[in-house]
Amino acid sequence: MINPNSNAVVTEGLRQALLPLSFAEGPEIVCESLPDGPPGIETQAHVDGVALPLRRRIEAADDADAFVIACYSDPGLHVAREGTAKPVFGIAECGVLTALTRADRFGVIAIKSASIPRHIRYLRQMGLLERLAGERPLEMSVAESASGEGTLARMIEVGTQLKERDGAGVIVMGCAGMARHRRLLEDALGVPVIDPTQAAVAMAVGTVSVA
Amino acid sequence: MINPNSNAVVTEGLRQALLPLSFAEGPEIVCESLPDGPPGIETQAHVDGVALPLRRRIEAADDADAFVIACYSDPGLHVAREGTAKPVFGIAECGVLTALTRADRFGVIAIKSASIPRHIRYLRQMGLLERLAGERPLEMSVAESASGEGTLARMIEVGTQLKERDGAGVIVMGCAGMARHRRLLEDALGVPVIDPTQAAVAMAVGTVSVA
Amino acid sequence: MINPNSNAVVTEGLRQALLPLSFAEGPEIVCESLPDGPPGIETQAHVDGVALPLRRRIEAADDADAFVIACYSDPGLHVAREGTAKPVFGIAECGVLTALTRADRFGVIAIKSASIPRHIRYLRQMGLLERLAGERPLEMSVAESASGEGTLARMIEVGTQLKERDGAGVIVMGCAGMARHRRLLEDALGVPVIDPTQAAVAMAVGTVSVA
Amino acid sequence: MINPNSNAVVTEGLRQALLPLSFAEGPEIVCESLPDGPPGIETQAHVDGVALPLRRRIEAADDADAFVIACYSDPGLHVAREGTAKPVFGIAECGVLTALTRADRFGVIAIKSASIPRHIRYLRQMGLLERLAGERPLEMSVAESASGEGTLARMIEVGTQLKERDGAGVIVMGCAGMARHRRLLEDALGVPVIDPTQAAVAMAVGTVSVA
Amino acid sequence: MINPNSNAVVTEGLRQALLPLSFAEGPEIVCESLPDGPPGIETQAHVDGVALPLRRRIEAADDADAFVIACYSDPGLHVAREGTAKPVFGIAECGVLTALTRADRFGVIAIKSASIPRHIRYLRQMGLLERLAGERPLEMSVAESASGEGTLARMIEVGTQLKERDGAGVIVMGCAGMARHRRLLEDALGVPVIDPTQAAVAMAVGTVSVA
Amino acid sequence: MINPNSNAVVTEGLRQALLPLSFAEGPEIVCESLPDGPPGIETQAHVDGVALPLRRRIEAADDADAFVIACYSDPGLHVAREGTAKPVFGIAECGVLTALTRADRFGVIAIKSASIPRHIRYLRQMGLLERLAGERPLEMSVAESASGEGTLARMIEVGTQLKERDGAGVIVMGCAGMARHRRLLEDALGVPVIDPTQAAVAMAVGTVSVA
Repeated sequence: MINPNSNAVVTEGLRQALLPLSFAEGPEIVCESLPDGPPGIETQAHVDGVALPLRRRIEAADDADAFVIACYSDPGLHVAREGTAKPVFGIAECGVLTALTRADRFGVIAIKSASIPRHIRYLRQMGLLERLAGERPLEMSVAESASGEGTLARMIEVGTQLKERDGAGVIVMGCAGMARHRRLLEDALGVPVIDPTQAAVAMAVGTVSVA
Repeated sequence: MINPNSNAVVTEGLRQALLPLSFAEGPEIVCESLPDGPPGIETQAHVDGVALPLRRRIEAADDADAFVIACYSDPGLHVAREGTAKPVFGIAECGVLTALTRADRFGVIAIKSASIPRHIRYLRQMGLLERLAGERPLEMSVAESASGEGTLARMIEVGTQLKERDGAGVIVMGCAGMARHRRLLEDALGVPVIDPTQAAVAMAVGTVSVA
Repeated sequence: MINPNSNAVVTEGLRQALLPLSFAEGPEIVCESLPDGPPGIETQAHVDGVALPLRRRIEAADDADAFVIACYSDPGLHVAREGTAKPVFGIAECGVLTALTRADRFGVIAIKSASIPRHIRYLRQMGLLERLAGERPLEMSVAESASGEGTLARMIEVGTQLKERDGAGVIVMGCAGMARHRRLLEDALGVPVIDPTQAAVAMAVGTVSVA
Repeated sequence: MINPNSNAVVTEGLRQALLPLSFAEGPEIVCESLPDGPPGIETQAHVDGVALPLRRRIEAADDADAFVIACYSDPGLHVAREGTAKPVFGIAECGVLTALTRADRFGVIAIKSASIPRHIRYLRQMGLLERLAGERPLEMSVAESASGEGTLARMIEVGTQLKERDGAGVIVMGCAGMARHRRLLEDALGVPVIDPTQAAVAMAVGTVSVA
Repeated sequence: MINPNSNAVVTEGLRQALLPLSFAEGPEIVCESLPDGPPGIETQAHVDGVALPLRRRIEAADDADAFVIACYSDPGLHVAREGTAKPVFGIAECGVLTALTRADRFGVIAIKSASIPRHIRYLRQMGLLERLAGERPLEMSVAESASGEGTLARMIEVGTQLKERDGAGVIVMGCAGMARHRRLLEDALGVPVIDPTQAAVAMAVGTVSVA
Repeated sequence: MINPNSNAVVTEGLRQALLPLSFAEGPEIVCESLPDGPPGIETQAHVDGVALPLRRRIEAADDADAFVIACYSDPGLHVAREGTAKPVFGIAECGVLTALTRADRFGVIAIKSASIPRHIRYLRQMGLLERLAGERPLEMSVAESASGEGTLARMIEVGTQLKERDGAGVIVMGCAGMARHRRLLEDALGVPVIDPTQAAVAMAVGTVSVA
């Protein structure tokens, strides 16, 4: 699992979130930051800027059997796939696909509204717009959402709107580093909540194990 | 994992196929047949006939944390989900969704052409038709496809047509009991091949592990 | 016409609603309840539970030339079609298709919000979501909606929202037993209102007559 | 029922085809030609040329309760609807919608290939392209298809391609005046065949009867 | 450029709006009214009534290399294309297509709500509904919107709703004669605003220049 | 107009192809290569590799009012748009949108089959797949297609298949440097042929001129 930003605290949080998928005889899950990544991925420039560094890291990783790119914009996903015959998973793609197994229509909690057009465009690219109930923003910075005490309360507020106004039967957390809120949010909303990084790593573990 | 038919040989084959996903500290994977199921699921009557028995089995299974219905028609999926708050996975749904992580458009190998309209209708229900490259039949009975020596050769023939004529970048085996051919078919075709039962159980293992 | 529930009062109401389609030299319209049906169809378990009984009833009906399944969830539609070469009509399908002849986008009045995801999934299966303006619930039980005096008033309220907020140019009453409100609702809303049972029986009468 | 061309022989053929839908106590079915229509509708200019004459005829018909425009291009359908509060049915629309009640995907037999782009555009306008299996032309003139002895044989040939190569489960005859071939074609193909004029008039009879 | 209504003031306004596209060595842009057109195009009858007159005008114009039909309902577009091998552009089509180059989802400002179902149907015909954020009406007559002082203020109000509530990243002015508000509206909203007549003529100028 | 590869011969060819759009009083069209671009854009790595260099070039171009990225993969389009308030046009986007003004369904001539999945994914992202008749490859290298004598003959062969087998009513040349074949190909096929660079620059000229 590669965190495309260089923030080691985020990477450590992701590592913690993935411990439940790390089985003794199962595939080893290695979590690393992208050294030359930005502190956070918030713009299209950040997304495109890490694409080739991610590919190079993946091409060089002779000892890995599959890769997970842990940013909800799935930066570099297609270029990385071009560079290796091994499976490469994006957390947005896997988070949404996993949500489709839990209810007919899904909602997405975005960090900021500025990301929503990019996400909608990506869902259309995947051909999945007919399953989208809605996407709504927390309107926090990534930093705020990571540290702020009010994050869970705001997620519950936004998730409730997605469920009650938009008809979402399952919620995808549209960011890599929020796994610690997953269960509490699920309990508060009464519908399944998907952490996309866990979803992607679960699919990677499965793919590698049966190969 | 519940095989909705009563054929214990098929269930044993599925159990073998799932051994790679059975980790010592991971979720225990229990494979069982549906005692009152038909010998095979080949018609809509078979599909609808096992729906409520599957739901009853699932409602009664206090000791399971998630369920996989192991038939490529996903019988009883929605009625089972209505009967439990636990996750229920269908192998057709999970097989196709997993395929979407490996290429832009997928092909499906059906056992018989008579199933294809049912599958197309189901893909449209899931909102995924724009990603379908094509579906082509082996035109074998389930029994033939299970036992016959020519099955792999015929799968390679059909898979090649899906890849070369239809533009499929990944192949889904549209049947529960074909996992033993997966790797050979993948090697022959040069594109990823998804066994839907393995795909569904991998998603179930992941979901249970992070809950 | 088979009412999949066992409620003879509902069946008698349907029979009354179909009298205008019963012509002396036209096809005879026989209305019956499904003896082993539940009192009402409100859940997926009810839907799936009547599928095979409906098919068996249809397979046994040597003297009928076409069948109408009179429940807005179209239970058993596909399995019944598999069991007979004669035409089988579902009222949800026919109600919506008939609505498409009256305006560009249609609205649906559901009895309860819990049915809406099932209806949306079914509209997607039919490939008709682009024509849906919206679906809104009365939020009444089937019993209340059948007997309550406030039903028409509530239907006008919900129908007005579908027309004015969602842009529906025609309304489908999303339940089998509401034909007696059709004309009053149409007059109040100023747009066509479709009773799905009448729509389906009209299509069945036509199909049988020209065969 | 208005035949938008001025060919009285065609109109008389349509009248014959509609006799089975003319019930003593049912709505009277009056068939007429459009006096100022062209001999046949083969081009977009023909289609657009009859739109306002059709509307004027419909606005003037005080004694009719519903209208059917009997040309597979549905000329003037929307402008006629604007001009009256009474229902107006187009045979292409009704033929396709009726086909959707008989199988998952439909095929269309066109008279000439030049009409196919216009039909595809119209199916997209209706939002029904996902249900189209294919459209194939007889490549005959309307005159040939009306009189020629080889018409049925050619329809069987084209219908067989729609069924076997394109996967059509039901066939729509894409022309107003072919009802006399309907049953023979259905018997030859083994799938339902829809005559669009009969389909539209059946829906009109139903709508008028329950109003 | 043909203004399908007979209002010379509107035509003169369009001519003014197109001056920036009239280059000395570029294609000459000739603006004319349709003499037998109505004073304004507000209904389907207006739309269909000018179709053949437009075609005849276009067929007779031996000295023109391309045509623009300057009404947001694109009257006669397909019948005109049938009548000439030269390119014919509709301003609704070109306005929307040009908008797609500026943002992921577009909003449309309609003059009156009565036009919206017609516009939605047309966008579905073009296969572009997935890119529509929303359409909202000024609810003015064409005359009011042309002369009234409050038009720009109302456009800003409606445009703001399209941007903020519906998520439009670009706005199309859904009428031929509003070019003089384009820049002011764009400045007020902070997103691109497309005048459809300018968009269509720009595409025509390009097509003619490279032919 | 920026050619994202560093091949000055290609850029000079593009400059020639754009001369007809360069009007004395119109916007000046400046054509340049991307100095740090690869010799040609053939892979996803090439596409992603030029994204940020294109953005930086565009951000630095204070004297330009609009930008055209002249590669049929539209590299860097979204990241460039994020970096400037000025319009940025991609030739694939504009080529396809311009084609939609000429016929109902378009075909694309690709240089190599390996690009087709990338193009299909992009068309789905734009929401335009319902208008695609088909895409077929020349199966030549960019170098061959640029220099080879057989290029036009092969384009006619592939274009004929798109027209006759796939039903394309207009053809898009899926590469930046083929404008010199446009008219000959159009004459041979009898349907419009779009050069995407000319299409994009025409839209840019129009946008700048009316701003």
